Amino acid sequence: MRDVIIGMSDGLTVPFALAAGLSAAVSSSFLVLVAGIAEIAAGSIAMGLGGYLAGRSDRDHYRAEWEREQRHIKQAPEAERAEVREILAGYGLGDEMLDSAVAAITANPRHWVDFMLRNELELERPEAARARNSALTIGLSYVAGGILPLVPYALGLAVPMALTWSAGLTFLALLIFGAAKGKVTGIRMLRGAVETAVVGSLAAGSAYLLARLVSRFG
Amino acid sequence: MRDVIIGMSDGLTVPFALAAGLSAAVSSSFLVLVAGIAEIAAGSIAMGLGGYLAGRSDRDHYRAEWEREQRHIKQAPEAERAEVREILAGYGLGDEMLDSAVAAITANPRHWVDFMLRNELELERPEAARARNSALTIGLSYVAGGILPLVPYALGLAVPMALTWSAGLTFLALLIFGAAKGKVTGIRMLRGAVETAVVGSLAAGSAYLLARLVSRFG
Repeated sequence: MRDVIIGMSDGLTVPFALAAGLSAAVSSSFLVLVAGIAEIAAGSIAMGLGGYLAGRSDRDHYRAEWEREQRHIKQAPEAERAEVREILAGYGLGDEMLDSAVAAITANPRHWVDFMLRNELELERPEAARARNSALTIGLSYVAGGILPLVPYALGLAVPMALTWSAGLTFLALLIFGAAKGKVTGIRMLRGAVETAVVGSLAAGSAYLLARLVSRFG
Repeated sequence: MRDVIIGMSDGLTVPFALAAGLSAAVSSSFLVLVAGIAEIAAGSIAMGLGGYLAGRSDRDHYRAEWEREQRHIKQAPEAERAEVREILAGYGLGDEMLDSAVAAITANPRHWVDFMLRNELELERPEAARARNSALTIGLSYVAGGILPLVPYALGLAVPMALTWSAGLTFLALLIFGAAKGKVTGIRMLRGAVETAVVGSLAAGSAYLLARLVSRFG
C-alpha cells in the first residue's frame, strides 16, 4: 500500500509539474505531451526498478545483519548474553527467572540471533516476494498517475487551455487520492487530501516559475 | 543512507532519461535544459516532501498500532497473553519458566505492548527526526544527481553532441555511484555498479524510443 501511495503520488505530481513547467516555456502542446511521455517512461522504470533493488538490498542487509549477529555470538558470547539479559530485564523479568530465561534463549543459537534481531536491532524480516511486488506496484502506479495530467495536451488543446484543464484535473485527483491515502495510513482524510494537494501544487508551481525564469535567458 | 541512494539514483536517472528522450524529438539544447530544470524542481520537491510525509505516516502508523495493541490487552487479555506465551515458547522457553516469564512481561502493560510490537508485529520504532532528515536528504540528493546530465546542454552544444556527452558522463556517474551503493549496502561493488547502470540505461533508452515514436505522429 505504501508503494501504491509513493508511485501514484509521484506519478500524479511529477509529470504534471513538468507539463506545467514546459507550458511556461513552449507553445506546442504536442511537445509538452512528448516530454510528459518520456518522463513517465523514465520515472516508472527508475522508481519501479529502483524499488525492486531497494527491496532486495533490504533483504541482503537483513541477511548480513543475521550473519554478523551469529558471529558476535560465537566470538563474544558473554557480551551478547549480557545484552539478552538487559533486554529481558527491560520487559520486567527479574531474579532467578531472568537467569533461567537468558539461559533458555541463549541455549539455541537460532533463537538467540532471532531474539537479538527483533529486540536489539528492531529489524523487520523482509518477505521474499516483497521486492518484486514492490517494483511492479510502484512502476504501474506511476504510469496510472502520470497519464491523467497529459490528457488535455493529448487532445490538442492550446497550451494555456491545456494547462488550465490539466491543473484542474490533477488537483482534483490529488485531493481524492490524498483523502484515500489519509484513510489507508490512519491519518485523517482531510489532512491527507490537503497535504497531497500542497505537495503537488508546490512542485508544479516551482517547475513553472523556474522554467519561466530560465526561458527568459534563451 | 538509503535516502541518499534513492534520491541520487533517481536524480541521475530521470533527468538524464528525460533529456535523452527530448533529444529524440527537438533540436534545441536550450529546450532540453529548460525541461530538465523543470523536472529537477518537480522531482526533488515531490521526492523530498513525499519522503517527509511517508516518514511521518510511518510514525503515525506506529502510534496507531501501539494504541490498538493497548486496547487489545484491555479487551482480550487472555488471547494476548496466549500470544506472548507462543512467542516466548518459540524462543525456547518452556515449563514453569515459561509461565513465570509470561506473568512477568504481562504484569506491566507498557512492557507487554512493547514486547508485542517488536516480536509479533516486528515494527521498528520510528525516530523523531527521521522524517525531516529523510526529506532533506532525498530532495538534495535528487538535485545533486540531476544537474550533471544537463551540463552538456547548458554549455550550448548541439543536441546530438550534448546527448553523447550527457550519456557518457551519466553512465560514468551511475557506475561510480552504483559501486559506492554496493559497498554501503553490503552487496558486491561490481554488482551495485552494473545494476545501477542498467536501470539508468533502460530508463533513458525507453524514454528515447518512446519520444521518438510519439514525435513521428506530431
